[in-house]
Amino acid sequence: MRYFILALLLVAPAFSVAQSLDRDDALFVGAQVFIEPGQTDAQVDGWFRTLRENGMGVCRIRMFESYMDDGRGGYDFSLFDRAFRAAEKYGIRVYATLFPETDRTDIGGWKYPYDSLQLNGFARFIEAVAEHFRASPALQGWVLLNEPGQSPLPDYPFIRMAMDDWMEDNPLPDFTPDGYPVLADMRKERFQMDMNTRFLGWIADRLRQYDDAHDIHVNPHGIFSSYSQYNLAAWRPFLTSMGGSAHASWHFGDFDRQQYALAMLANAEMLRSGAGDLPWFMTELQGGNNVYSGGVAMCPTPDEIMQWLWIVAGTEGKGGIFWMLNSRSSGLESGEWALLDFRGRPTPRVDAIRKVAGAWAAHKNLLGRARLEDSGVDVVYFRESGWAENLLCPEGDDRYEARQTGASMKSAVSCFRALTERGLNAGFRSADEYDFSPDDFSGRTVVISNQICIPWKYRSRLGKFVSGGGTLIVEGLSAFYDEYLRNTMTTGFMFRNLFGCSVSEFRIRDSIFNVMADSLKLPAFPWHGILESPPEMDRGTSDLTVSADREVSVHDYGRGKVVWCPSNIALGARETGDYAPLSDFLYGSLPDRAVSSVRFSGYQDNILLRTLRSGDDIIVICINKSGTERTVTLDNIACTSSPDVIFSSKASLSGTTSLTLAPEGILAVCFHAG
Amino acid sequence: MRYFILALLLVAPAFSVAQSLDRDDALFVGAQVFIEPGQTDAQVDGWFRTLRENGMGVCRIRMFESYMDDGRGGYDFSLFDRAFRAAEKYGIRVYATLFPETDRTDIGGWKYPYDSLQLNGFARFIEAVAEHFRASPALQGWVLLNEPGQSPLPDYPFIRMAMDDWMEDNPLPDFTPDGYPVLADMRKERFQMDMNTRFLGWIADRLRQYDDAHDIHVNPHGIFSSYSQYNLAAWRPFLTSMGGSAHASWHFGDFDRQQYALAMLANAEMLRSGAGDLPWFMTELQGGNNVYSGGVAMCPTPDEIMQWLWIVAGTEGKGGIFWMLNSRSSGLESGEWALLDFRGRPTPRVDAIRKVAGAWAAHKNLLGRARLEDSGVDVVYFRESGWAENLLCPEGDDRYEARQTGASMKSAVSCFRALTERGLNAGFRSADEYDFSPDDFSGRTVVISNQICIPWKYRSRLGKFVSGGGTLIVEGLSAFYDEYLRNTMTTGFMFRNLFGCSVSEFRIRDSIFNVMADSLKLPAFPWHGILESPPEMDRGTSDLTVSADREVSVHDYGRGKVVWCPSNIALGARETGDYAPLSDFLYGSLPDRAVSSVRFSGYQDNILLRTLRSGDDIIVICINKSGTERTVTLDNIACTSSPDVIFSSKASLSGTTSLTLAPEGILAVCFHAG
Amino acid sequence: MRYFILALLLVAPAFSVAQSLDRDDALFVGAQVFIEPGQTDAQVDGWFRTLRENGMGVCRIRMFESYMDDGRGGYDFSLFDRAFRAAEKYGIRVYATLFPETDRTDIGGWKYPYDSLQLNGFARFIEAVAEHFRASPALQGWVLLNEPGQSPLPDYPFIRMAMDDWMEDNPLPDFTPDGYPVLADMRKERFQMDMNTRFLGWIADRLRQYDDAHDIHVNPHGIFSSYSQYNLAAWRPFLTSMGGSAHASWHFGDFDRQQYALAMLANAEMLRSGAGDLPWFMTELQGGNNVYSGGVAMCPTPDEIMQWLWIVAGTEGKGGIFWMLNSRSSGLESGEWALLDFRGRPTPRVDAIRKVAGAWAAHKNLLGRARLEDSGVDVVYFRESGWAENLLCPEGDDRYEARQTGASMKSAVSCFRALTERGLNAGFRSADEYDFSPDDFSGRTVVISNQICIPWKYRSRLGKFVSGGGTLIVEGLSAFYDEYLRNTMTTGFMFRNLFGCSVSEFRIRDSIFNVMADSLKLPAFPWHGILESPPEMDRGTSDLTVSADREVSVHDYGRGKVVWCPSNIALGARETGDYAPLSDFLYGSLPDRAVSSVRFSGYQDNILLRTLRSGDDIIVICINKSGTERTVTLDNIACTSSPDVIFSSKASLSGTTSLTLAPEGILAVCFHAG
Repeated sequence: MRYFILALLLVAPAFSVAQSLDRDDALFVGAQVFIEPGQTDAQVDGWFRTLRENGMGVCRIRMFESYMDDGRGGYDFSLFDRAFRAAEKYGIRVYATLFPETDRTDIGGWKYPYDSLQLNGFARFIEAVAEHFRASPALQGWVLLNEPGQSPLPDYPFIRMAMDDWMEDNPLPDFTPDGYPVLADMRKERFQMDMNTRFLGWIADRLRQYDDAHDIHVNPHGIFSSYSQYNLAAWRPFLTSMGGSAHASWHFGDFDRQQYALAMLANAEMLRSGAGDLPWFMTELQGGNNVYSGGVAMCPTPDEIMQWLWIVAGTEGKGGIFWMLNSRSSGLESGEWALLDFRGRPTPRVDAIRKVAGAWAAHKNLLGRARLEDSGVDVVYFRESGWAENLLCPEGDDRYEARQTGASMKSAVSCFRALTERGLNAGFRSADEYDFSPDDFSGRTVVISNQICIPWKYRSRLGKFVSGGGTLIVEGLSAFYDEYLRNTMTTGFMFRNLFGCSVSEFRIRDSIFNVMADSLKLPAFPWHGILESPPEMDRGTSDLTVSADREVSVHDYGRGKVVWCPSNIALGARETGDYAPLSDFLYGSLPDRAVSSVRFSGYQDNILLRTLRSGDDIIVICINKSGTERTVTLDNIACTSSPDVIFSSKASLSGTTSLTLAPEGILAVCFHAG
Repeated sequence: MRYFILALLLVAPAFSVAQSLDRDDALFVGAQVFIEPGQTDAQVDGWFRTLRENGMGVCRIRMFESYMDDGRGGYDFSLFDRAFRAAEKYGIRVYATLFPETDRTDIGGWKYPYDSLQLNGFARFIEAVAEHFRASPALQGWVLLNEPGQSPLPDYPFIRMAMDDWMEDNPLPDFTPDGYPVLADMRKERFQMDMNTRFLGWIADRLRQYDDAHDIHVNPHGIFSSYSQYNLAAWRPFLTSMGGSAHASWHFGDFDRQQYALAMLANAEMLRSGAGDLPWFMTELQGGNNVYSGGVAMCPTPDEIMQWLWIVAGTEGKGGIFWMLNSRSSGLESGEWALLDFRGRPTPRVDAIRKVAGAWAAHKNLLGRARLEDSGVDVVYFRESGWAENLLCPEGDDRYEARQTGASMKSAVSCFRALTERGLNAGFRSADEYDFSPDDFSGRTVVISNQICIPWKYRSRLGKFVSGGGTLIVEGLSAFYDEYLRNTMTTGFMFRNLFGCSVSEFRIRDSIFNVMADSLKLPAFPWHGILESPPEMDRGTSDLTVSADREVSVHDYGRGKVVWCPSNIALGARETGDYAPLSDFLYGSLPDRAVSSVRFSGYQDNILLRTLRSGDDIIVICINKSGTERTVTLDNIACTSSPDVIFSSKASLSGTTSLTLAPEGILAVCFHAG
Repeated sequence: MRYFILALLLVAPAFSVAQSLDRDDALFVGAQVFIEPGQTDAQVDGWFRTLRENGMGVCRIRMFESYMDDGRGGYDFSLFDRAFRAAEKYGIRVYATLFPETDRTDIGGWKYPYDSLQLNGFARFIEAVAEHFRASPALQGWVLLNEPGQSPLPDYPFIRMAMDDWMEDNPLPDFTPDGYPVLADMRKERFQMDMNTRFLGWIADRLRQYDDAHDIHVNPHGIFSSYSQYNLAAWRPFLTSMGGSAHASWHFGDFDRQQYALAMLANAEMLRSGAGDLPWFMTELQGGNNVYSGGVAMCPTPDEIMQWLWIVAGTEGKGGIFWMLNSRSSGLESGEWALLDFRGRPTPRVDAIRKVAGAWAAHKNLLGRARLEDSGVDVVYFRESGWAENLLCPEGDDRYEARQTGASMKSAVSCFRALTERGLNAGFRSADEYDFSPDDFSGRTVVISNQICIPWKYRSRLGKFVSGGGTLIVEGLSAFYDEYLRNTMTTGFMFRNLFGCSVSEFRIRDSIFNVMADSLKLPAFPWHGILESPPEMDRGTSDLTVSADREVSVHDYGRGKVVWCPSNIALGARETGDYAPLSDFLYGSLPDRAVSSVRFSGYQDNILLRTLRSGDDIIVICINKSGTERTVTLDNIACTSSPDVIFSSKASLSGTTSLTLAPEGILAVCFHAG
């Protein structure tokens, strides 16, 4: 017998609602206004006025059921009514986050209902809050739940029940498709991914009973580790816009501070890909200082604030909302994170926001309709690789980052960085968000970097991609396992036909070593992949030396090609801190379409670039994280008239396609159609 | 319904007993004689004789119920009778530690009864042991329980029951006094503090039923972390003397070996403050080598032994008892900790003790009646800051010591050190041990260093202190929270009137930075507190730069003043290892009274000094931990005749007020009234 | 009431079976052939053919009950029949490992039955598999269980029941033999050791019901930590050969890579000692690369492969079986560990094996009958020292390796290394494997290095050894405790008569210090043991300085002598990385017999040597791990004719007794009787 909540969970509803936020809308900036008891009318009014005065037209409000509970079984909305009235007064659009009753000391809210009682309580709360606030002209939309997902999965009755049913429907097979025993079980990972989708879908479904007019949005967080539990594409049917939380202090632990801008860019690309045709915006950006909260405590600089906003703009994001305008009053996070100081006055970070908002307002149509120029290059990751790491990685191996959870994502990020530092627009996509449906993939490139686990179904998809003209670049331990953790490389490599050869073996190395790709010397670490030798040079039995270890293979297949280096050159770049060789290698493997895109004339470490098209205009956004003044020249940009500077912070445009940026500088330039 | 044990716990009894140990008594040295089965008459006799021969007039004996249990429901005291007879024979005064039945492998004894059965058993044991031994002329007093308190609080039926009742009586309020929601619960911390007091009070009450003549003593341990569960002042009513365990290897983990003497001094000052008008002595000092026990294993040198004793003498302690004379025979700690070697012979550490004991005996009245000269300066800490850290600090942040539990205590210790290395007598007190009752605080100084949580009631107390002429120096994140973890600094700073301004914001910094206080450059880390600018220089809206960040404020209030630096300059000193700037800053803020006290003529790193008055004589005790020979000059000491050297180890007196000490040297000098 | 399984456990059966493997047999090399579903006839045939073609005459097969279960309550042996047929075809002898039904994801198999149901199931499986396969002419023998033993002991019903009974039979005494209280309980450690013996004995007993003709073998693993739960000598009655798993990546965590050869040698000596008169071989040697499995991941080089095999040959091992020929297909370990590459072709590691196998075949009789030359020197360890560490060592002391579990074994290994680098054959034995029965120990040496816990019974055994002419060298904290953790050194040292003096005390030191042994300066760390001074120089009471701390004692006792240094000179060598002083000290203390053995003419760091006798011939095996070319000269070798080189890898013989080896080089030479 199935319990009713399961029935709910099994429905992933889809709505046909007028999208409140449109992909062509003007860009916006906003901040979380934290509403709680104790605040005065003047304070609340002041916060919304401050938003208006500083170019922030959007806010987010956490709708605490705890603060609406009237203690008599009903609701008292007055605390939040006051806030909505202030929003209306100053013309601020509100994203309202559903925040069901929880313990007083629960800072972030629960992610899964404990039991069906709690689920039912949530349903009642959704009805009440939606019916009451849907009428407010300030309401822009709903955020379904704050930062869904949780790791490890908690041991709740609700979850146990749901999991039991799910497992019954999804038994572990005894054998792999090629007849080997299945000896690993990643179903719990897949269950959690499904559970997240279904629970969010259930909330959206409940909400749509009472409000079918407003935006529905959600903010996945900690994407570099949580990605493996998010099936973003599956959320599209019940969302009207995609979002995310991207807090340097909580979510960028794999990066040092200099790399936070790159992390923000990668995060943004992941969300853009997840959104598909939906608009997206960054739901949470860190606004202020950490004290006791935050994994790696920090206070963003005004420069970082501006960089993050321009990165969002550079990836088609419709805007960014800072966490938070005013800080909480009590408990963990109180006195932290805020854009305003303790006296309620704007900090220099607010000035930074206002400057960007001003530029965005001045170029409203140009920026609102801008779309990323497609270089055809995408770094593609497989959620299953994260699942495999969760199962396989030994605890406490401090020596090899490659054997720690997260190595597959770090590798993919390294390739993304190496391409970005070429000035190329690179996408960053989950494999199931990549469109394998076309017949022609000419000019398209897919980079698969140390994705240790690739499911069976991608065998035909990738084959179709390459035979249809695509360029596939594969690196590291990619495709070592299938989704049953069957090792694909022993006794007949799954991708042998496609890749043109197979790996003889991997050998782990004690220290960084070099892989030769033609004349390129690529630092690699730790796995050294030796490719099968061509028959003519196959090892004899005469001696221990192998005369011709092959480390890189280039294979023409159909109309495309596969470039394969089965050693960890992405982690090698990370380990050495030198991304130039990796960048040269990837760049050297790209097809014409990418090479003829707008890009730097060479490799530029720690310079970020994004190129967009708006109508006939080309917009480039460039950020200098290198710590020194730098001048970069753009190739492949047609410029017949003098370009316009849209925004400049510590930066200048010299000549027509040469950009000069001081450390931390930002430059946004529009090149008019020629 | 309340259980009977709770009733017991709710009574904190007070006795009116003749104090057996008097504050004017001569100083003593002693050691734990460990009594257990297997020992011979000759051994036991020899140990007490050794005490006598080496100037140790006091011992401590652990009264194992396990070794008195006759296996037939009664008691067999013979093992301990033999020891008491030996003590009587050699004139050794005994502190007898109650040690109720416990597991054989339980080395330190239980700290809380498991259930009421165990509590009742303890009551029976107290009766039996007190009735039997109270008649011994050797008995000096009782130690209630070995090292009370335990962290974390164990999950015992007794504790659960007591806590449930306590929580019922002390509900968490919904709102702070200023109307904000209470979102954190520190009641478990407060409960444990109360529980410790009440359980000790209960033991004392039981004991007093059978013996109202002898000393009642107890030895709180690990003070730098356990302080937050000890309300020492509340213990005074049922004690006749205060004590403590101060083992470098177990308790000084926040310090390196060079700083153990400073740690001993701070520990002693904390106990002295806790004792109030009661006499105090150091109940446990490390006597010998660690093997497997001890957190940071060590074997004290003879120099350290002498230094520790003189530190006790320099803080009005009546003496020190070493743990231990003879080592345990079996299990953990066996063959460890002892003053005697494996053959029962005195080690060089005993020679060291004998030398000090000889000097103390030779100056019995002078030292016995000595009182610390009051410089008026006290470093004051708030137990609630430790509680807040326990709740808030993230696990595993290795980067910022400031975000780890213990940062508030480390900060206070840094200020204590910076003042001590000026040669000043600085007190080290819990806020509730500080006397805020006078009307006049002229010449008094309170230093509050990174005390992140300050309860509401201190708003008026500190106001009265400053308006009454006191000097208040505040540093770091002090007063960030109230006792509900309400952030005091947002929306109206609780101490704005008193401090004269408020903090605009804190920003965490990646590395050490400098705070400018007039011409002083103070290294600070990690929180950078920016003070509200005066109205005339308030930030405009023109640019991102803030022209006039204020980092230190001096505010006259009533007859006193408040000096406030809201950045972490105490942790900055700790991080850099350079305490001179902090010392200069604190010293420069002191009132005349402190400046005109006996002190070094300048800052002296790693030199400790304490100044006492005995009748009309002034005694100074000086210790050189710097690792090199050093000569220091004393200011403000009136010396008309040639001073007397009471004790000298590797040290000499040159001229009349200039002390020269070799590394590890000690000098105790008496300046006669002029 | 006792359960039936206990009855089983209480019987440690002994069989009188024809030994299938003989100590004089030719040496063999082999590999694990991993049999599982999904494999083709051609693959299986190919693997066995590959063994044959590369000189590997032996294989090991894991007999998965899971893959024999026919799903109808019976067995289907076909998967394994095919493998046995292939073994027969190519003349490969099979060691079949019993592997009872377990979870699919259980990579290593269970070590103890969960309950009696599982035990009974195992019994049925043993019957079925033995009855079926005993007839195969390929079957060489059975491996009772893969890598027995587990730490910590799991909480299974079977174990709880067995332990309860065992504890009842083995109560903890109240007092030590000399009347002191017993305050520590090491019975759980002893129980587990007994349990391992009895469970293995039970398996052998079951097996012998159905097959009394074949070899019975087992492979203890992780010897440097698991040794404390293995009573190898007690296994001899039910085994016909001893074995072991010695994987660098899993089991040599105490060593760096350069020292893996030394670790292999020590491991081999421990197994040789455990085997007694039984033949032994290395059941598992790492064959290939780690990816996610393995503690310290690595891929062996061909040089390492050859070194390991020659080390086995150099310690009377009959051969080595690599784990594994072909890798698993799925789950953890899939694609790892293999000698063959992913295409099933031999790697350079197979070439290395073939070379060694060729040399072994060419000198079949010479090597098969070779026996280690007895230098009379043995490093002896006490399992109880490991138990004591498990109980006593504090968690998280990163400062002192001496206070971490494993220090006693690391010390013993250091002494073993210091002797081996002298070119001496040193044994490495558990104390209960040492033969204390003779009357004459002239020329014999026992080294006891930091063995912190020595049971009472060794008082008389060691006394007999020394009085009978033996040389006893004792180091570190040896004999600090007896088996009740009674400290032996306080109040009358247990070994005072034998050692000639006692320790005054131990003092832990902050950093490396030097101990003077005559003119030798021995780096030591951390415990500094001070010996009792002779009466004439005993410390007076005059001053703190001890004029004559004695650090090393040499005591003549009966016909032998005891050399005692109670400071940690073995750990000092490990800490400094300089073993020369320790080697000089040990060598300088040896009796004539050792000094006149074959050995290097001086100390040679990182050169390993073993000397064997075969008939009248002397074989020396030498390995250079130093990283540079080295020439060593052998002393005490009589050579009248030109010696024969049996095997040379990067090495040469110059003159008659001078060996030159390039880095990683191996040389095996036969000196003919003169």
